[in-house]
Amino acid sequence: MGLHRVVEPAGVLPQAAWRLDPRPEIAPNEVRIRVERLNLDAASFRQLWEKHDGDGDAVRAEVLEIVATRGKMQNPVTGSGGMLIGTVEEAGRRSPLGFKPGERVATLVSLTLTPLVITDGLSGWDGRSEQVPCDGWAILFARSIAAVLPEDLDPQLSLAVLDVCGAPALTGRVVSRYVAERAARGGAPVTVAVVGGAGKSGSLSLAAARRAGAGRTVGVVPVAAERDALVAAGLADAVVVADARDPVALSTAVTSALGMPADVTVVCVDVPGCEHGAVLATADGGTVVFFSMATSFAAAALGAEGLAADVTMLVGNGYVPGHAELALGLLRDEPGVRGLFEARLAAD
Amino acid sequence: MGLHRVVEPAGVLPQAAWRLDPRPEIAPNEVRIRVERLNLDAASFRQLWEKHDGDGDAVRAEVLEIVATRGKMQNPVTGSGGMLIGTVEEAGRRSPLGFKPGERVATLVSLTLTPLVITDGLSGWDGRSEQVPCDGWAILFARSIAAVLPEDLDPQLSLAVLDVCGAPALTGRVVSRYVAERAARGGAPVTVAVVGGAGKSGSLSLAAARRAGAGRTVGVVPVAAERDALVAAGLADAVVVADARDPVALSTAVTSALGMPADVTVVCVDVPGCEHGAVLATADGGTVVFFSMATSFAAAALGAEGLAADVTMLVGNGYVPGHAELALGLLRDEPGVRGLFEARLAAD
Repeated sequence: MGLHRVVEPAGVLPQAAWRLDPRPEIAPNEVRIRVERLNLDAASFRQLWEKHDGDGDAVRAEVLEIVATRGKMQNPVTGSGGMLIGTVEEAGRRSPLGFKPGERVATLVSLTLTPLVITDGLSGWDGRSEQVPCDGWAILFARSIAAVLPEDLDPQLSLAVLDVCGAPALTGRVVSRYVAERAARGGAPVTVAVVGGAGKSGSLSLAAARRAGAGRTVGVVPVAAERDALVAAGLADAVVVADARDPVALSTAVTSALGMPADVTVVCVDVPGCEHGAVLATADGGTVVFFSMATSFAAAALGAEGLAADVTMLVGNGYVPGHAELALGLLRDEPGVRGLFEARLAAD
Repeated sequence: MGLHRVVEPAGVLPQAAWRLDPRPEIAPNEVRIRVERLNLDAASFRQLWEKHDGDGDAVRAEVLEIVATRGKMQNPVTGSGGMLIGTVEEAGRRSPLGFKPGERVATLVSLTLTPLVITDGLSGWDGRSEQVPCDGWAILFARSIAAVLPEDLDPQLSLAVLDVCGAPALTGRVVSRYVAERAARGGAPVTVAVVGGAGKSGSLSLAAARRAGAGRTVGVVPVAAERDALVAAGLADAVVVADARDPVALSTAVTSALGMPADVTVVCVDVPGCEHGAVLATADGGTVVFFSMATSFAAAALGAEGLAADVTMLVGNGYVPGHAELALGLLRDEPGVRGLFEARLAAD
């Protein structure tokens, strides 16, 4: 678990630590990665971008400062990190991860718990994108999750998919359960709403919901351009434009598109204040899955109570067994998903 | 939903609003309550108490200031509120709540969305307890949940139970599902850990878990005095002392007491930093239910991912149909629960 890398405060796990020890010497169960690229969490990059009014140099300086101070890339405001790709430099003899030196890998655990040193001053990054070219090293622990990058896919494409692969896996699992229960009781088709349906985790979640047997799906997007892109991708039965922060607008849009509130609502947008709308958009007995790191626990808990809404609310766990394979499979099989990802990468 | 009571910002639901309009004139679907007592949320009171170094006068002044400024009692730091008891003063002709003037009721929705005016300057409160004697009025909306106070129980006792009645209801529901699945597959008994087992929501959750068919339960408490009280109450098969903020200590204590990690872990302590320990204490395929308003969404999500823990994490929804009746029934039927509640009220 990497407890020996925690510098302060003592006794917490690496993710909760203020500062980690990123020294390059590895323990027998650790792996050292030569880093080539960081992929900052969207909420984290957005906060830095807004704080510095879009000044890329200032964003870069703050990322360098955070990593130098904390020994990891964890945004102090959002609490979130991101992930990285690189090459295995040295693998301890007792590491259970099975990596060999020279393999190109992506980490699937958050940067918030990954010891990291940056050695190039981020000279190849303009501070204007979540994708950060980078030289330096990072340490993986025994229980860290990482994947060898597939050879048939562009590494940046793989990285973008792996970054959010927990979302389609958990969405698929939740929708499958409703489909099975509904089939046993002979009820109506299962309905699914994905808020932020044109984004990375959103488009994968729509594809996963359909594959899991959802009868009708709706993607909610904030602007017309995203609506057009998601309609063209063909991943949802309906696409609607609504401000997810407006509870009445969001719930009305979802309910109109599905003909009823959603059995499962998946929140994939990285803006605060979507909790109440998601709850209102969901049927009694339904489930809301929150994947956005901008989610407020108190707003969700008190909002559902205040609305007397009998909904199950899940904290989106980024880890589900088999999540990387599932997400990469969706990318390969669904041209609509692949198109959205490639357009997004091209725009970055 | 009370949208017409929202003053700022416009368009949000009352719980998310900065300020509500608490004017006494009611709409046809509203109810006005003459308030006699507020019960502040534990996390909120604790924050105020610590901020003011235990100065009761300063705590009282800040509560008055919050209510005067916001038109509701919502702690700006914790985001949480509490509940109230009072007497129905006027019920709109289209209110679906079914109350008559003169009935003594407790609100089961949070104070964070309840328009409130205090008229006595809280002169009967010393600022040193969560229980706040109070004169003033409050407004209930059409979908607000409130219960007529049972005549066979002390009102303060009922209030204390109703304040946390979502926890035993959701715990019972989750444990029942594991028990049913385990019975169908012929597996081992279901194990349950309740962190903060000697508290209000914790003791009710332990009783609910046992009633739902849990095979073995453990209550985790922070100090020896609570251990002795919970052992005497007889609500758990094992009681252990551990610091819930120390992930290794918590998971070791739970795993030792149960002989394995818990199938269901319920977090009922109002201190930050318990997320990782709860995840570590839970078996793969298990569920963590977070009832503490001190829970960090990001810490839970990233913690589980970082530990590669395949656990389902639930945001504790304070509303489950039938929750008030279930909790009051547990209080009546379980002398151990009643004893803990009465001792806690006596100590307040």
